[in-house]
Amino acid sequence: MRRTAAGRVLAVLDAFGPRHRALSLSEISRRAGLTLPTAHRLVRELVGWGALERGEDGRYSVGLRLLELSALAPRGLELREIAFPYLEDLHQITKGNVHLGVRDGLEVVYVEALRARVRNPVTSRVGDRWPMHATGTGLVLLAHAERDLQEQVLCSPLERFTPLTVVDPGQLRRKLAQVRQTGVAVARGLITLPDLVVAVPVPGPDGEVAAAISVVVEAAQAQPRQLAALLTQASRSIARAMSA
Amino acid sequence: MRRTAAGRVLAVLDAFGPRHRALSLSEISRRAGLTLPTAHRLVRELVGWGALERGEDGRYSVGLRLLELSALAPRGLELREIAFPYLEDLHQITKGNVHLGVRDGLEVVYVEALRARVRNPVTSRVGDRWPMHATGTGLVLLAHAERDLQEQVLCSPLERFTPLTVVDPGQLRRKLAQVRQTGVAVARGLITLPDLVVAVPVPGPDGEVAAAISVVVEAAQAQPRQLAALLTQASRSIARAMSA
Repeated sequence: MRRTAAGRVLAVLDAFGPRHRALSLSEISRRAGLTLPTAHRLVRELVGWGALERGEDGRYSVGLRLLELSALAPRGLELREIAFPYLEDLHQITKGNVHLGVRDGLEVVYVEALRARVRNPVTSRVGDRWPMHATGTGLVLLAHAERDLQEQVLCSPLERFTPLTVVDPGQLRRKLAQVRQTGVAVARGLITLPDLVVAVPVPGPDGEVAAAISVVVEAAQAQPRQLAALLTQASRSIARAMSA
Repeated sequence: MRRTAAGRVLAVLDAFGPRHRALSLSEISRRAGLTLPTAHRLVRELVGWGALERGEDGRYSVGLRLLELSALAPRGLELREIAFPYLEDLHQITKGNVHLGVRDGLEVVYVEALRARVRNPVTSRVGDRWPMHATGTGLVLLAHAERDLQEQVLCSPLERFTPLTVVDPGQLRRKLAQVRQTGVAVARGLITLPDLVVAVPVPGPDGEVAAAISVVVEAAQAQPRQLAALLTQASRSIARAMSA
């Protein structure tokens, strides 16, 4: 495959990931499928611009210019900033993990993730990307997505994270119908068994579903109805703030 | 000036900024100094990759792939995640704006910015970049930076935001010495007059200053000593969490 010049730049950035936060030049070259001289030249340009930075050990990692740029994403930190006060309230009141997710392609990306002080087994982070069937916010976003996109997900292999992850297309279809009917997704143990998640949609200015918010707590102590009420209230506040 | 292929890709990204969050193709072409066909080709590649996304009005903005990538920056969202619980406590207790800043070149970049519920005139955001002499976190970072870098800042034009912004090099030099001596930066009205900021350094694993944290409150109600004590405590907790 012949890559474009832009493609080679993006391949250098793609070399970095959650399990590859700091890379040597030769690791970048190998992971990006570029010759060492090409990788060297591109890395130098990216360091000059601020997309990458070089640590004292000579390894490269993602630089602050990308944070600055990503802060401009309307569905990213801008949305996060509007929603933050309400998410913080939810965090304080429920003591759970609080997530703000938006759909990107066939996945959900967390734009905010406030972690319970008592560390849960799942420690989701801003920028995390999950398949939609496996998270509360994802189920809400999938339930309200266009029919074509739903079918695309239902026809794709559904990854199993625990015995409770819904991986049967028929069962998932029924689950989505239920989320649309009730306005709330409640699910247990999708990614880690002891967790229960409650999630609701956040409507955008045109009535479409712009995002989803969720609270994850230990199933043993969960009060799903109360969580749903709190989330619904927060969702309304966020929607109001977004349209202001 | 002849630009490299990578330079042209980065020029497209550089076209976006806080006052240019959504751009048409011709605006991108003009701001990036590229012909329309080149801009079109690069934008298409960047949209395919997820660095940009196209809104319903046909304008482009920054996409979620950059948020995902920026979440990998060790001095960005990773630091923010470690510091967050302590910043949240500061936010709850002081009711002020809370900032976590790191130095990038001659400037300070906010990695976290929790805004007081009562909206202050300055509404700083994650990803914001300020000259160091004009913010509390910046003063702390500058005071603890290498001598060469301090001189570079002291010799450069110091932008004035209010009558109280310290723009005289001699006065700034004395201010920095004071920050080093006391371990705290206290300053009034640097960017907007009614504000008072208190900031302290956050030591990294090797004893160097890795970041700075600050609280901004209305000067009329400020209790700088109490704020300094709370900040120092939070800084120690963050340093401990970073080294864990």
